[in-house]
Amino acid sequence: MPTRQESDSLGVVQVPTERLWGAQTERSRHHFPIGVGRFQWGRSVIRALGILKKAAAIANGELGLLPAETVELIVRAADEVIAGQWDQEFPLVVFQTGSGTQSNMNANEVIANRAIQLVGGVIGSKHPVHPNDHVNRCQSSNDTFPTAMHIATVEQLEAVLIPAVTILRDTLAAKAEAYQAIVMVGRTHLQDATPITLGQAISSWVAQLDEAIATIQRAIPGIYELAIGGTAVGTGINAHPQFGDLAAQKIAIETGKPFVSAPNKFAALSAHDAMVNVSAALRTLAGAVMKIANDVRWYASGPRAGIGEINIPENEPGSSIMPGKINPTQCEALTMVAVQVFGNDHAVAFAGSQGNFQLNVYKPVMLHNVLESIQLLADGCRSFNDHCAVGIEPNQPRIQDHLDNSLMLVTALNPHIGYEKAAKISLLAYRENISLREAALQLGFVTGDEFDQWVKPAKMTCPG
Amino acid sequence: MPTRQESDSLGVVQVPTERLWGAQTERSRHHFPIGVGRFQWGRSVIRALGILKKAAAIANGELGLLPAETVELIVRAADEVIAGQWDQEFPLVVFQTGSGTQSNMNANEVIANRAIQLVGGVIGSKHPVHPNDHVNRCQSSNDTFPTAMHIATVEQLEAVLIPAVTILRDTLAAKAEAYQAIVMVGRTHLQDATPITLGQAISSWVAQLDEAIATIQRAIPGIYELAIGGTAVGTGINAHPQFGDLAAQKIAIETGKPFVSAPNKFAALSAHDAMVNVSAALRTLAGAVMKIANDVRWYASGPRAGIGEINIPENEPGSSIMPGKINPTQCEALTMVAVQVFGNDHAVAFAGSQGNFQLNVYKPVMLHNVLESIQLLADGCRSFNDHCAVGIEPNQPRIQDHLDNSLMLVTALNPHIGYEKAAKISLLAYRENISLREAALQLGFVTGDEFDQWVKPAKMTCPG
Amino acid sequence: MPTRQESDSLGVVQVPTERLWGAQTERSRHHFPIGVGRFQWGRSVIRALGILKKAAAIANGELGLLPAETVELIVRAADEVIAGQWDQEFPLVVFQTGSGTQSNMNANEVIANRAIQLVGGVIGSKHPVHPNDHVNRCQSSNDTFPTAMHIATVEQLEAVLIPAVTILRDTLAAKAEAYQAIVMVGRTHLQDATPITLGQAISSWVAQLDEAIATIQRAIPGIYELAIGGTAVGTGINAHPQFGDLAAQKIAIETGKPFVSAPNKFAALSAHDAMVNVSAALRTLAGAVMKIANDVRWYASGPRAGIGEINIPENEPGSSIMPGKINPTQCEALTMVAVQVFGNDHAVAFAGSQGNFQLNVYKPVMLHNVLESIQLLADGCRSFNDHCAVGIEPNQPRIQDHLDNSLMLVTALNPHIGYEKAAKISLLAYRENISLREAALQLGFVTGDEFDQWVKPAKMTCPG
Amino acid sequence: MPTRQESDSLGVVQVPTERLWGAQTERSRHHFPIGVGRFQWGRSVIRALGILKKAAAIANGELGLLPAETVELIVRAADEVIAGQWDQEFPLVVFQTGSGTQSNMNANEVIANRAIQLVGGVIGSKHPVHPNDHVNRCQSSNDTFPTAMHIATVEQLEAVLIPAVTILRDTLAAKAEAYQAIVMVGRTHLQDATPITLGQAISSWVAQLDEAIATIQRAIPGIYELAIGGTAVGTGINAHPQFGDLAAQKIAIETGKPFVSAPNKFAALSAHDAMVNVSAALRTLAGAVMKIANDVRWYASGPRAGIGEINIPENEPGSSIMPGKINPTQCEALTMVAVQVFGNDHAVAFAGSQGNFQLNVYKPVMLHNVLESIQLLADGCRSFNDHCAVGIEPNQPRIQDHLDNSLMLVTALNPHIGYEKAAKISLLAYRENISLREAALQLGFVTGDEFDQWVKPAKMTCPG
Repeated sequence: MPTRQESDSLGVVQVPTERLWGAQTERSRHHFPIGVGRFQWGRSVIRALGILKKAAAIANGELGLLPAETVELIVRAADEVIAGQWDQEFPLVVFQTGSGTQSNMNANEVIANRAIQLVGGVIGSKHPVHPNDHVNRCQSSNDTFPTAMHIATVEQLEAVLIPAVTILRDTLAAKAEAYQAIVMVGRTHLQDATPITLGQAISSWVAQLDEAIATIQRAIPGIYELAIGGTAVGTGINAHPQFGDLAAQKIAIETGKPFVSAPNKFAALSAHDAMVNVSAALRTLAGAVMKIANDVRWYASGPRAGIGEINIPENEPGSSIMPGKINPTQCEALTMVAVQVFGNDHAVAFAGSQGNFQLNVYKPVMLHNVLESIQLLADGCRSFNDHCAVGIEPNQPRIQDHLDNSLMLVTALNPHIGYEKAAKISLLAYRENISLREAALQLGFVTGDEFDQWVKPAKMTCPG
Repeated sequence: MPTRQESDSLGVVQVPTERLWGAQTERSRHHFPIGVGRFQWGRSVIRALGILKKAAAIANGELGLLPAETVELIVRAADEVIAGQWDQEFPLVVFQTGSGTQSNMNANEVIANRAIQLVGGVIGSKHPVHPNDHVNRCQSSNDTFPTAMHIATVEQLEAVLIPAVTILRDTLAAKAEAYQAIVMVGRTHLQDATPITLGQAISSWVAQLDEAIATIQRAIPGIYELAIGGTAVGTGINAHPQFGDLAAQKIAIETGKPFVSAPNKFAALSAHDAMVNVSAALRTLAGAVMKIANDVRWYASGPRAGIGEINIPENEPGSSIMPGKINPTQCEALTMVAVQVFGNDHAVAFAGSQGNFQLNVYKPVMLHNVLESIQLLADGCRSFNDHCAVGIEPNQPRIQDHLDNSLMLVTALNPHIGYEKAAKISLLAYRENISLREAALQLGFVTGDEFDQWVKPAKMTCPG
Repeated sequence: MPTRQESDSLGVVQVPTERLWGAQTERSRHHFPIGVGRFQWGRSVIRALGILKKAAAIANGELGLLPAETVELIVRAADEVIAGQWDQEFPLVVFQTGSGTQSNMNANEVIANRAIQLVGGVIGSKHPVHPNDHVNRCQSSNDTFPTAMHIATVEQLEAVLIPAVTILRDTLAAKAEAYQAIVMVGRTHLQDATPITLGQAISSWVAQLDEAIATIQRAIPGIYELAIGGTAVGTGINAHPQFGDLAAQKIAIETGKPFVSAPNKFAALSAHDAMVNVSAALRTLAGAVMKIANDVRWYASGPRAGIGEINIPENEPGSSIMPGKINPTQCEALTMVAVQVFGNDHAVAFAGSQGNFQLNVYKPVMLHNVLESIQLLADGCRSFNDHCAVGIEPNQPRIQDHLDNSLMLVTALNPHIGYEKAAKISLLAYRENISLREAALQLGFVTGDEFDQWVKPAKMTCPG
Repeated sequence: MPTRQESDSLGVVQVPTERLWGAQTERSRHHFPIGVGRFQWGRSVIRALGILKKAAAIANGELGLLPAETVELIVRAADEVIAGQWDQEFPLVVFQTGSGTQSNMNANEVIANRAIQLVGGVIGSKHPVHPNDHVNRCQSSNDTFPTAMHIATVEQLEAVLIPAVTILRDTLAAKAEAYQAIVMVGRTHLQDATPITLGQAISSWVAQLDEAIATIQRAIPGIYELAIGGTAVGTGINAHPQFGDLAAQKIAIETGKPFVSAPNKFAALSAHDAMVNVSAALRTLAGAVMKIANDVRWYASGPRAGIGEINIPENEPGSSIMPGKINPTQCEALTMVAVQVFGNDHAVAFAGSQGNFQLNVYKPVMLHNVLESIQLLADGCRSFNDHCAVGIEPNQPRIQDHLDNSLMLVTALNPHIGYEKAAKISLLAYRENISLREAALQLGFVTGDEFDQWVKPAKMTCPG
């Protein structure tokens, strides 16, 4: 493979000629062969770096720190990065410098070389656009990388995750509405309890998703606060004093989101509690989908020797032996997503606690796990929605059969014949394995008409 | 030990005569000898159960479901429970029924028997106050226990934790102010970096604590929503339709906090995501104190072969061999608290994901861990404040010595002699192990006067 | 409260006259009011400290470093500590110095003062037995505390946990044997599958417990290796070169367990990977009991609208409304224990990763969590055994009913009529909600006699 | 894209003509668009599936269940899969059916179609090799997938991880040997303590790695036990009774590892405690490398205002401002790996606890996380070894300077002048910020000659 020379302060490095990246990216490729193939940054991070560099260039231009033509070149190159034209020029992995320095330099180098290319210059010459002096102007990895972390996280939360969860929430809300009159056995401690409606059961899933979305949204304002302007240690050394605010404002314009400069830059570099909070919110969502998916598969268990009160779509053969074996595979995928998110969150919180002095050097691994959790939850919710939730239907004969046999219905007799006699009825029914009605008539406490008039499960589901 | 007979629906039980608890409490003592001595409920939970039972009685009275004299008796007994008069009558442990049924019954039994005692009745007779029919009226363990969970959690957060964290935050804010002019070496990647002030370093700790408190406060509204009114499965069966709202209102009056009835009772019984969110907020605080305590002990490391830039109080002999060995024991205690809170949080989140159908049966273990984390963080922050943070002082000669020797100060020469020459100076200083000033003069790039005029660390900490 | 003066290298401290502890214990009580009432060390740790101090005294005597009468006095006092006579003299909490220094000094002070008391000396005088020079001879907290950690952990594992798990394992093994011929529906993905026997199902629980015990036992040899002899930093400074081996040998004699001196003392002080491994083994056990307890409660779910294939003891009223509502409360307690152990393990592993240089200062919190997990698992297994597992019984009519209706039995027809026709039978049965036999006869693929002869579920459970 | 028809029991599916996979693989691609691009199975799993299918075919042949020519065809196709020729034919992701059914079918389909192709047959025709009847003969996903899990895990542990850790261990052992005479300040509680040698410090890292490798090796025997032979529910239905043992034996031959058939197949399908144990062992290793990497970066901190006692390779520019700023980037990458492994382990243990009845349906997510942790730890250790550990060198002047100034050396005077006078010397030195020698002479307790003769740090590191 033909190479060209690039250089940095440690000297000269051979870089593949066809690549836009430079010396520091190449050094990192060489020094960090860890998780290659799985741990490269994806679209959202590359896009965020592009947005950041574009905004910085514009801010530098307005502050008179870069000439207009340099700004314009950087913006053109950055726009291409934002659009995804150069994703293959970002080869670095998560497990690199803990400040993300090398990915920041990767962006600087690619944008500089692309800008040079746009004016027909010599790639690697650093003229007329220099990766450090121009693209990285007023910046340090220590403030740019956490800024890109926040941009990518907010965009993925708002554009990818919340819509996906909302689709599932809406599907379930429609099911809750549709099945609001289907009375079924309630269950507590896995034991038969007083009746509820299927709609009520599903409404609790909707409520959990609503609360999970609200929890995520409460965590977002912390992410709107950007480290940009803090540079190396939080003091903003080598940056214009207005640069942080101005760059944040340009990022807000580019993204359409209310990003601001963080009030305390020292904390913004040395701690990432806002990311930990986002991860925790994702864990809450994971816990909610685990409960929901578990309920769905238990309700669909059977077909003969389980609960079997709902039917779910049959997407693939469950067994080469038996037709009718519908495995709740979407539930399985979604609960596996949930445990993965729990694991990812663990890594994020651990990493978040390990800052020292003016820097936390676990930035890349925190970002990676938050973004992976977002993607998995979004994918998982969409898949579960499309291939399972939309097809949830009550198995009405089974529901009715369970309800008819429920000993809990005896509760409705309490006001008429008293707890003592009601208890005798249910006990007889339980021990003799007969219906409540049979037991009641056998004991002579009520007539058949009275029983039918008083024992109305539907009324027990809305006592008011 | 003399006993008396108490009974429940399963039959008769012998209870120690001197005790106010009844049959179901006694059964639980017998069946759950798990973690006895460490896992009994403490003051905050007993108090919360008392508040709940008092509020329920008043609400039942207003709804015409209990006669005034019964209400009054329950209120008197509950007030004593609230005040802490009967804590020894609550012997049950965390590891019991997962709905907390037995602790709910413990409260019902103690309050009923104490009410009976107040009117000179026969303890265990259930007359004139019945534990189920009167004290537990319109209630089920499934809605009362999570209600008590929320009451206890909010009270501990607001009365115990936030004040403790605030004291530490205020101490550190005062230190940040006091030391705002002390210029020191900044550190990133554990490596010397451009200068900051000690006040700036401490301000980042203050910012983390402020954000942690805000995170906790954002989690509290979810805890204001109470399950009460949902009874057995969320439908509110056997409760007056207005009972939930009214009881929540009475709890709000009793506690002075804006408790309300939860909008979806099915979710309120089968999921505890609001508790998971509180636990996550506690974890964020734990991560913050871990970073702070680590910074303090590293800054105080030495005295000769460490960083040694701050002094902390000498509370106990660090060694029988050497005076002057001040171990950062408060930091050690606080970071141990932090890892405990991480562990507790793990248990809470795991438990929170394990609900089935209409009930999550991990309620007691969730409550236990949240309350323990609150107490440990509060105790840990107070202890750290009182025995360490208040005594943090700069070791000025050491700070100055480090600053004077820092090669990073060369940055200030860049505008005057250019990066290339500045680099040569710092490189020479580093390799020859001499001062920057010596190197600069040796190379002849600046005069001594110029060096002294241009290299001013304090200016580097506020570049604006 | 009357006090006496005690002193240490920092000066004089007032100690309650009636107490045997001295200055450093008193300082710690004052400086670490964290988790008081819940986080004091229990019997096993106090006993371990007594064993260690006794062994050290004997070793010092043999090495000629302490006179015989001093050794004898220390041994007498230590024997009383071992026996539990002075537990109330150990007031300190987990959240103290991270090396456990203060608990080591607590043991030194109590044993010295008790020895002084035994000869009628003046408590606090340090004559004729000095807490440091005599009781702590050749020792440092840095090697004694981890030594006590290992002693307490091994003793609790072997004397408390393994016997408790073994009892449960034996109960279940007997059940597996007793129910080896009870054929029931197998279940995979929560869906009906080919038959198994109840004995086979229970045998998998036995296998998990056997493997969990084996996992714990594999972790124990690491705990047999003691830090003793390493003193302050691992070099053994101030200790006789043979002291470590000799003291370990005396500890082995006292405990009857093959303790040895750790091969690398530097690692023994600065890392506690053997404790992390024990904690991980406890987590594996916790995961196993979670699976078992979940299976039990699902098999016992119902009574009418669940699976209901086993009956478990009815220990307490499940509801004031309905007789027959048996809540699986022991399962709930045990699964809550499991999540607590997961949380505790998290804290242990986190703490274990945080050592620096020659010391890990998270020793107390690691020990606390390991011991708590051991106790909870032991208590939980015993309680589950006594109040649930011993009473597990098949609900034979229900098992038979499920089995008779299982569509999976069709598999047995494959060899006789081919997969295609068998599939048609099961599909018809599923869609028409009729029995396989009915469907088979309706389709005319087999006669009734053939069906009865070929479809024998019991044979499907032991295909060999 | 041109397609061909494939079919399964649910009907016909269009599959891209150029692909070897069949209907069930195609259905899975459609139904599980979760984490695509990051969560496909890698080489080790595909290889393991190939090994399994080859072994199964041979075993079936020996048992007379498959004709020799079918066996030969399957073996040829499987050998190609083992060799990596068809990796692109395995497109499925982790988040699928929790039994891994679809990846098992993917292997069946690819091998069948490739075998058909080898004899010039029609792909998709299932003749002469049928994916179910031939390739999957005597197997079910429920026993094949966990068998493949174990094969892949053992191979990666033994071929990838242990060698990588061993390389690092050997490098460090050589450093420990090389630097065994370099006396330096010991540090406990981050405070200066009695001296050690650099070799001793490094020996503790070696000891941790040795123990971590031993911990992993202790976990491997559990992985040698294979589920194969259990088929659908553990009874081995539809398999020849000798198939499990024979297939395990063939796998052992193919891999050269002592695989056996698991003693309890019910547990082998419904629990994966052996995988949880492996994950725990990986976590222990992660904790060890975290401690080691932290020590390295703290020892290398500085260059002027840190500890600075070792030098590490300068791999990339740490800053565009200051030469000499060597960031410990390999330490940062390795500690990020460590927190990732902690997170992955969390997911594994959680998943492992969630089995129900005869199946745990979290198999794929458990396998994924274990394999990812193995890869990251192996990559991380190699990278850390090659780019950091091999270049660790003492900074001797700094080490000597710290040692000379250490107040802890006073300990050596205790035997000569007593603790009291020694204490006065160190206290004076500390307060006046002078050397011990100066203080000693100033107080007149020793002569200069005596001081130099008695205070010999090197002797303090090997007191024996």
